[in-house]
Amino acid sequence: MLDSTTYSECRALDASFDEALARTRAALADEGFGVLSEIDVQATLAAKLGVEREPYTILGACNPQLANQALTAEPQLGALLPCNVTVFVYDGQTYVSSVAAEQMLGMVGNPALAPIAREVGARLERVLGHIAAEPTVA
Amino acid sequence: MLDSTTYSECRALDASFDEALARTRAALADEGFGVLSEIDVQATLAAKLGVEREPYTILGACNPQLANQALTAEPQLGALLPCNVTVFVYDGQTYVSSVAAEQMLGMVGNPALAPIAREVGARLERVLGHIAAEPTVA
Repeated sequence: MLDSTTYSECRALDASFDEALARTRAALADEGFGVLSEIDVQATLAAKLGVEREPYTILGACNPQLANQALTAEPQLGALLPCNVTVFVYDGQTYVSSVAAEQMLGMVGNPALAPIAREVGARLERVLGHIAAEPTVA
Repeated sequence: MLDSTTYSECRALDASFDEALARTRAALADEGFGVLSEIDVQATLAAKLGVEREPYTILGACNPQLANQALTAEPQLGALLPCNVTVFVYDGQTYVSSVAAEQMLGMVGNPALAPIAREVGARLERVLGHIAAEPTVA
């Protein structure tokens, strides 16, 4: 069973991959995040390398107000944006995981980013909590 | 004038934004990176917030072999993938910037990622060098 890491917050879900992805999209929207990019890792690596991997999708989540503030404070921050939320299956278990925003943005060393990072981190924490708490739909 | 940071490698370019973006796509392909996501930050923030910002595009670059190895070694690494390369204009100057792959992947603390991070970092360094060295096309 996977757990949170130094760079990510992770929750195991009692849900199928597709249900987890749908819950994740809904929870991100509820917390003011748009999804600006979506990468189907399983399909991409199957197409490029012919390898078989379990389902794995990377969603690039962005709150426009917070992103605008952050880029104004730190012009090169696009190198670390958007904030990824991943939905994947590992050894048959479904997970949702988000980047640990405060840790990642802490790499930058710009104090103006600290309150923005805290706000993003709090919202992503609520997103994960909401997804993990939701009852499984049959 | 912007310079490289703790989390990014940056080069100023004597080129228009559109030319820089075209050079960047070509240089990424030459080093074996596919572009899995593309975010037009200027257009997104204009649409969502009505703010005017200079051109800014985030490309999500991925070398399939290296990504497959990295995800096998570290299942949650999707939280930090793909590697961003940004092309943007700041105070009228065009820049290309890439995430500092070794520093970012160093957050993970997984020794199995070190050689992969070095390889990605070396390729991104060549990408930036190639883009910055190219003569401006009239």
